[in-house]
Amino acid sequence: MNRAEIKTLLHEFKRGKVTADNVIDAFSSNIIEPLDFATLDHYRELRQGFPEVIFCEGKSENQVAEIAKRIVDHGSVLMATRATNKHYAAVRKVIKKARYNHVARTIVANEHLVRMRGRGTILVVTAGTSDIPVAEEATETAKLMGNATDRLVDVGVAGIHRIISQSAKLRNASVVIVVAGMEGALPSVVGGLVDVPVIAVPTSVGYGASFNGISALLGMLNSCAAGVTVVNIDNGFGAGFAASLINRKRQEC
Amino acid sequence: MNRAEIKTLLHEFKRGKVTADNVIDAFSSNIIEPLDFATLDHYRELRQGFPEVIFCEGKSENQVAEIAKRIVDHGSVLMATRATNKHYAAVRKVIKKARYNHVARTIVANEHLVRMRGRGTILVVTAGTSDIPVAEEATETAKLMGNATDRLVDVGVAGIHRIISQSAKLRNASVVIVVAGMEGALPSVVGGLVDVPVIAVPTSVGYGASFNGISALLGMLNSCAAGVTVVNIDNGFGAGFAASLINRKRQEC
Amino acid sequence: MNRAEIKTLLHEFKRGKVTADNVIDAFSSNIIEPLDFATLDHYRELRQGFPEVIFCEGKSENQVAEIAKRIVDHGSVLMATRATNKHYAAVRKVIKKARYNHVARTIVANEHLVRMRGRGTILVVTAGTSDIPVAEEATETAKLMGNATDRLVDVGVAGIHRIISQSAKLRNASVVIVVAGMEGALPSVVGGLVDVPVIAVPTSVGYGASFNGISALLGMLNSCAAGVTVVNIDNGFGAGFAASLINRKRQEC
Amino acid sequence: MNRAEIKTLLHEFKRGKVTADNVIDAFSSNIIEPLDFATLDHYRELRQGFPEVIFCEGKSENQVAEIAKRIVDHGSVLMATRATNKHYAAVRKVIKKARYNHVARTIVANEHLVRMRGRGTILVVTAGTSDIPVAEEATETAKLMGNATDRLVDVGVAGIHRIISQSAKLRNASVVIVVAGMEGALPSVVGGLVDVPVIAVPTSVGYGASFNGISALLGMLNSCAAGVTVVNIDNGFGAGFAASLINRKRQEC
Amino acid sequence: MNRAEIKTLLHEFKRGKVTADNVIDAFSSNIIEPLDFATLDHYRELRQGFPEVIFCEGKSENQVAEIAKRIVDHGSVLMATRATNKHYAAVRKVIKKARYNHVARTIVANEHLVRMRGRGTILVVTAGTSDIPVAEEATETAKLMGNATDRLVDVGVAGIHRIISQSAKLRNASVVIVVAGMEGALPSVVGGLVDVPVIAVPTSVGYGASFNGISALLGMLNSCAAGVTVVNIDNGFGAGFAASLINRKRQEC
Amino acid sequence: MNRAEIKTLLHEFKRGKVTADNVIDAFSSNIIEPLDFATLDHYRELRQGFPEVIFCEGKSENQVAEIAKRIVDHGSVLMATRATNKHYAAVRKVIKKARYNHVARTIVANEHLVRMRGRGTILVVTAGTSDIPVAEEATETAKLMGNATDRLVDVGVAGIHRIISQSAKLRNASVVIVVAGMEGALPSVVGGLVDVPVIAVPTSVGYGASFNGISALLGMLNSCAAGVTVVNIDNGFGAGFAASLINRKRQEC
Amino acid sequence: MNRAEIKTLLHEFKRGKVTADNVIDAFSSNIIEPLDFATLDHYRELRQGFPEVIFCEGKSENQVAEIAKRIVDHGSVLMATRATNKHYAAVRKVIKKARYNHVARTIVANEHLVRMRGRGTILVVTAGTSDIPVAEEATETAKLMGNATDRLVDVGVAGIHRIISQSAKLRNASVVIVVAGMEGALPSVVGGLVDVPVIAVPTSVGYGASFNGISALLGMLNSCAAGVTVVNIDNGFGAGFAASLINRKRQEC
Amino acid sequence: MNRAEIKTLLHEFKRGKVTADNVIDAFSSNIIEPLDFATLDHYRELRQGFPEVIFCEGKSENQVAEIAKRIVDHGSVLMATRATNKHYAAVRKVIKKARYNHVARTIVANEHLVRMRGRGTILVVTAGTSDIPVAEEATETAKLMGNATDRLVDVGVAGIHRIISQSAKLRNASVVIVVAGMEGALPSVVGGLVDVPVIAVPTSVGYGASFNGISALLGMLNSCAAGVTVVNIDNGFGAGFAASLINRKRQEC
Repeated sequence: MNRAEIKTLLHEFKRGKVTADNVIDAFSSNIIEPLDFATLDHYRELRQGFPEVIFCEGKSENQVAEIAKRIVDHGSVLMATRATNKHYAAVRKVIKKARYNHVARTIVANEHLVRMRGRGTILVVTAGTSDIPVAEEATETAKLMGNATDRLVDVGVAGIHRIISQSAKLRNASVVIVVAGMEGALPSVVGGLVDVPVIAVPTSVGYGASFNGISALLGMLNSCAAGVTVVNIDNGFGAGFAASLINRKRQEC
Repeated sequence: MNRAEIKTLLHEFKRGKVTADNVIDAFSSNIIEPLDFATLDHYRELRQGFPEVIFCEGKSENQVAEIAKRIVDHGSVLMATRATNKHYAAVRKVIKKARYNHVARTIVANEHLVRMRGRGTILVVTAGTSDIPVAEEATETAKLMGNATDRLVDVGVAGIHRIISQSAKLRNASVVIVVAGMEGALPSVVGGLVDVPVIAVPTSVGYGASFNGISALLGMLNSCAAGVTVVNIDNGFGAGFAASLINRKRQEC
Repeated sequence: MNRAEIKTLLHEFKRGKVTADNVIDAFSSNIIEPLDFATLDHYRELRQGFPEVIFCEGKSENQVAEIAKRIVDHGSVLMATRATNKHYAAVRKVIKKARYNHVARTIVANEHLVRMRGRGTILVVTAGTSDIPVAEEATETAKLMGNATDRLVDVGVAGIHRIISQSAKLRNASVVIVVAGMEGALPSVVGGLVDVPVIAVPTSVGYGASFNGISALLGMLNSCAAGVTVVNIDNGFGAGFAASLINRKRQEC
Repeated sequence: MNRAEIKTLLHEFKRGKVTADNVIDAFSSNIIEPLDFATLDHYRELRQGFPEVIFCEGKSENQVAEIAKRIVDHGSVLMATRATNKHYAAVRKVIKKARYNHVARTIVANEHLVRMRGRGTILVVTAGTSDIPVAEEATETAKLMGNATDRLVDVGVAGIHRIISQSAKLRNASVVIVVAGMEGALPSVVGGLVDVPVIAVPTSVGYGASFNGISALLGMLNSCAAGVTVVNIDNGFGAGFAASLINRKRQEC
Repeated sequence: MNRAEIKTLLHEFKRGKVTADNVIDAFSSNIIEPLDFATLDHYRELRQGFPEVIFCEGKSENQVAEIAKRIVDHGSVLMATRATNKHYAAVRKVIKKARYNHVARTIVANEHLVRMRGRGTILVVTAGTSDIPVAEEATETAKLMGNATDRLVDVGVAGIHRIISQSAKLRNASVVIVVAGMEGALPSVVGGLVDVPVIAVPTSVGYGASFNGISALLGMLNSCAAGVTVVNIDNGFGAGFAASLINRKRQEC
Repeated sequence: MNRAEIKTLLHEFKRGKVTADNVIDAFSSNIIEPLDFATLDHYRELRQGFPEVIFCEGKSENQVAEIAKRIVDHGSVLMATRATNKHYAAVRKVIKKARYNHVARTIVANEHLVRMRGRGTILVVTAGTSDIPVAEEATETAKLMGNATDRLVDVGVAGIHRIISQSAKLRNASVVIVVAGMEGALPSVVGGLVDVPVIAVPTSVGYGASFNGISALLGMLNSCAAGVTVVNIDNGFGAGFAASLINRKRQEC
Repeated sequence: MNRAEIKTLLHEFKRGKVTADNVIDAFSSNIIEPLDFATLDHYRELRQGFPEVIFCEGKSENQVAEIAKRIVDHGSVLMATRATNKHYAAVRKVIKKARYNHVARTIVANEHLVRMRGRGTILVVTAGTSDIPVAEEATETAKLMGNATDRLVDVGVAGIHRIISQSAKLRNASVVIVVAGMEGALPSVVGGLVDVPVIAVPTSVGYGASFNGISALLGMLNSCAAGVTVVNIDNGFGAGFAASLINRKRQEC
Repeated sequence: MNRAEIKTLLHEFKRGKVTADNVIDAFSSNIIEPLDFATLDHYRELRQGFPEVIFCEGKSENQVAEIAKRIVDHGSVLMATRATNKHYAAVRKVIKKARYNHVARTIVANEHLVRMRGRGTILVVTAGTSDIPVAEEATETAKLMGNATDRLVDVGVAGIHRIISQSAKLRNASVVIVVAGMEGALPSVVGGLVDVPVIAVPTSVGYGASFNGISALLGMLNSCAAGVTVVNIDNGFGAGFAASLINRKRQEC
């Protein structure tokens, strides 16, 4: 579908011959940009409300930089996760204004394009200090997707008063992301205190039998608190993304 | 806190001396009904917006029936999951109008107390026919929590056109629950097609190395589609509960 | 070592030629009663302060009954765990006063021989109703070993106020046993509230990915609360035994 | 079997006293070249239609170089997999024309000996950019075994239109190799679209609970699409080899 | 797409206005028969060359019978796997000529519609007698898909001469399916003896640490013989299906 | 190789034209009795010094009975393991003198053919009473293979004096088989006390996290006592067989 | 709660208006020091009898140093575990007298504040030399918590006389910590010899299938000796902490 | 027991007052040399026929050197396994004649003290070239324990004729050690060809799902060939030790 065809379609839309759904579907399914090592899906932004995000692990610096450039050139917000300093250096060469968050290990650009879309605040809670990098990835994602965020750190269940004394912040959130390693118990406690969705993120923090996050993951999947859903180990990005979809303001409400 | 104390507290609330939050907190933390084998938490309804749900596995028929009676006597909606025919028979003796859904294996009562609270429709999708019991548990939960529901069955990825041809239903949903066994691939496909939250439920359906749902669980946790969160294997109840929290209409929007 | 030899040794002890340790060691290592299918270690009572306990799984009814009879005939307290009704029937034929606890699945006899040996109270806490059988096994063991016991049931972390409101009972205990399935989070919360030893017992209760107690076990091993130690899945007996050793009054204090 | 014996056997074959099968069997079972650290099986080429391939992991540079030299001296095509730069340097010293593919990590030589033997095209598909190295190993193998190859990259299921829009390429293939990490869902989708054999290769790409490819492996083994078979994690070589056997032109058809 | 539309499309095809691919695609994507508990995909036969197969586990007798009837009424070959005697009884009520293979646990009907489509013989080999049921499922599948089959039973590697002495049968096959439990070693030996594709099927046969087929599965995935691909544990159907696709005669060769 | 050919071969052996090895090899590789569901390897007795043993799990009663009859008719000792009462009933119909050991779950016949072949005594030790069935299978195997056996039961490490006090029996053995469940620690202790080979057999006895013998298996594989080798979980037969090969008297010594 | 409020509360306590429990509870729940990356729980010392301990893994040097400084400034004993040399260097800059135990990998300060609180001696036993670092962490913890300690090294079960010959030391202990890798059998032997609590610590020492301590962990969980409880792999700190709680002198005895 | 006491005991032995067993037992249990970090068990040589062997992993260079020196000074053969170059350098400083085998990673000294004790030849077989280091550790151990050894390398099952053509070597062995990675199938084939004990050693060689040797380990434990026993992954030392005990010449035969 070339530029002319898009125009035609849009004119038809204006005259009421096709619906908005028709236009979006057409865009979504037909326009794909083939690189030698990737198939860019620029119109994911139309289908999902957020452009493609680059997962840097297993990609060379050049690959990340080239994909990043295409996304920015296309006029979309850039987000890259699991980025090393080397990835960032390569991206900086082609995108001067790219910013690197070394805690979250994310690269972002075109942030001025972000518009606030959330109904309420996304609260990101961590059980310990060591869980902060994953929480930071979640927060960065939620911000780029247009949400207000807040945070509570180091309020794990071994000192239960720390979380209970923060009930005001908990009540103020419209979605809560809970990041925890070790036994992953915090989401159960939080889930029992609030009446909003809780997304649990296990982290690979802990002694021997934490098995790089498996213990926390299993703890969260088996949470006795209803309303808790789980994402993959250390997957702050996924949690931030899901929380953003939940928090997104829509016309129908 | 006895009845007199509650009244005092409420009068203070009327005169503006305490806030609504104060009242709810007081209720939530102090009133607990101790049985010999359970600690009923009636005011969970105030904290979470839904009364305690009975998980029947590992409980005797008598225990389930007695807890159920207390909940119904307390004027709350009753929901019991993983109930056998024997559990139902015991409950029927003390709650005449209790209803048993033998596919979902749920017992419900006081359904007339349910009021519609959802912003949109919760769509429950299954990959195969064998996934229906878990989907039914999710649907029953969502309905009891005041939501409109819809469903799509047997639209697994091996015949990808089945799900793609249902894009209207997908677009119409405000939350999608995807129930799948075997490789658990359907949530990834659905997650790539919609811009609303997707909750994935792995089921214990499949050949040998499905390992009673572990394969599906891992597939869903590793979904390449952002925005997918996961609940425990065969946990239709958890998915329905989380979807209801997500879909719940709130004042702030 | 025959009866004559034992007398000689004891006379020497009286006259100060050998120490008490010498006598106990001699007894412990040399007197063993060989059956055709078991090697009874009657003097374990001297070494460990409690006679041999019969683990019934994998043993025939006759084997259990014969071993039980020897223990009772020897003048010791009888305890058998994981006993079925059939095991009990066989034991009843040879020990009229044997008692069966069908929740704990234990058989006991010679309870009049128990003498109180504990410094304080052993508190047994369960997260849910389904955890009661394992808690009962722990309680029965602690009682037979001469301890005062107390209990708290169904105070899991999804309703955190239930456990917090019981701080008096928690403060009153000298050892706490916490029995929990699903994510096994309760010991972490309890461990953070008390300054006495906490023994965690995972149970095989829960949805799919609880993996028959592995999730709870891992959760407890990874507890962020220091001072928590763990026994095997569903091993109420082991928890009760360890708690009794901890609680035992000794001369040195 | 020495040179004289081989000649005798071949003369007998000429005069019809022994069959071709007899000759091949004799060669296959009796002629083996013993090195100090390996037992070369030169006549594998006769039995399997491809000479022995060197798996470099766990072998020293010298061992790889020496085995490689024997294979090339024997007049066979050389293929070495999982080769490091150091392995390549050692091989280059003894085989000047050896070529290193640093993406696939393969060393090849004597490529001019390859003759085209395939019935159709082997299509190699990847779910993401990070899966390319494994796909490259598969492609290199298929080429060396005399096949035409084609490829599709980065067409994972989260953007399902990417693969569906390539139905022409899919229809054109006689065997499809699908390389995917994370949840490994792509083979199920492809398997439902084509009527030719699909070989799935899990890769060790992904977040925490991908467990270095186990999730993808399980996803593929549990594929709901019939006709999908699986090879080991990251085993591009095995997939390329199996695809070549499937695609091989034979007299009988 | 109703009957009239199909006619129109076919007329257009006759006049050369649309291609055969267009017609098949249209059929494949648009015609789906919705039942209350299943979405029948009748045109899978056009896409994959074989109609939908019923996997009976987790389906009620009525569900299996109703789906089976639709398939037979549609004029397709019926195959149902993992069928119990009860499933069969229900099917027999609606399809008089249905046949039950109690070893393979398959139900078939409309076998007269099968036409031979294979290039050569599919050989099914078992390591032991206990592997026969899975082998039988593979054989039944291959026959229904139009292939000649042969078999070798109980030729496991502990008596290596048993398989070596059968080299004639091995040489005569165009695809070999190897079914084995325990250590799953037989596919490696067979894979080293033949130059045709080998599909390995692990079975859940063996002592304790066979872990219901995991040992055999891992053994096969790690086969040192190139050209071996693997299907799920006990998945004779999958092996038979994949072997049939490999063996299928096509125009291009 | 028919009867005439065998005769010829034996005559040549008599006249010194072929060696004994030649004769045995010829027998071993060429004479195989094909049944419909099994490939009998009668000459395994020549290669391994013991005839084929029937593993009954997964075989029907008829299959076991038919194979058993062939073995007995062939004049060999019969041994069948993992036999149920039903298997035994079927065998009794065709072999009147067959004997069933219901603890070991073995069927034997033709025991009069056993000749003593051992250098010393094989000692079978169990950690607990529940391990006796597996020990019995090992003992039965060792006896049928011509060995003197002795046993020590219920001497687990929690009462270490029980095993230490039996040093005379330990010193008297030429091979020790140690059967243990739970933590599988006994082989390490025994291995440190003797200077003969120790074969460890894990059993599936124990509480939750024994995981049906995995804990004991891992404990034994990781034994800190050198000289301990391990067989599969509950595999008493394998231990008895290996011990017999070790204990077998040979000409060369 | 500010300084004034604390004073008021304490004056009320003096006049008998509030109890000591009230004061402690108030302190415990309300006074928390928020840093940017941690929530310090200074009054854990009141609740648990020991101040917060810093787990260094996953924390930056700066974070550890800043938390350490706050703890020391607050007048508490400092303990940091899993500390690297870099962590120590950072702490030394702000706390001159901090001491680093490079075997135990602990940082301590304010040791002069430790007061002896134990009833008896805590004995730390290791199976091998390689287990010493974990034992050292346990010992360091026990000492900082005010206990007398003793030790036995390299007394594993393969030379059973080594531990038996040390019965005097074993009898002298009031709690025993047993540290072992490989099969983890030593706690079972020790548990059978003493009548005091035994805490088992698995270590990640051993050959391949020790799986970084899983074998030892499982061995200990499945110990056939009653009275053994377990902490996480390599968790010397947890064992030392639990042993200290057990050994703590209390008024009630 | 001091030197004087030893003399007294030995004189009593000479005069027939105590038996040889008494003397050995006395030595074995009472004489232990305590270092600060190890408890040397010099008399293991009397109990087991071989002195203590140093497992270097997890030990510092100094610790290894000091233990090594004590062993050599005591007049025993020195063997250290899993030694790095650094360990060797430290040992060389105190034991000039120590020899390092860099393939087997062993340090040995006092080899002149070895005396031949074997009945026959121990044959070490490897499936591939990558398995050689483990095989070398086994061979080195067997030699130091006084055995003749032989070897077969790179004879894996994918080229089954390689092992079959070596039947002479196989027949000549009195014990066979089979070292294999990947699927670990070779021991089953060898076990079916010989009538002597086979010890299987899994190695951590292979592609992804070999899981560092677990696949090979499981394959070997599940071997369908009776008479195969297994040691830990990569444990060449254990295999060599067990084979030596099996091969040891004793008086009784």
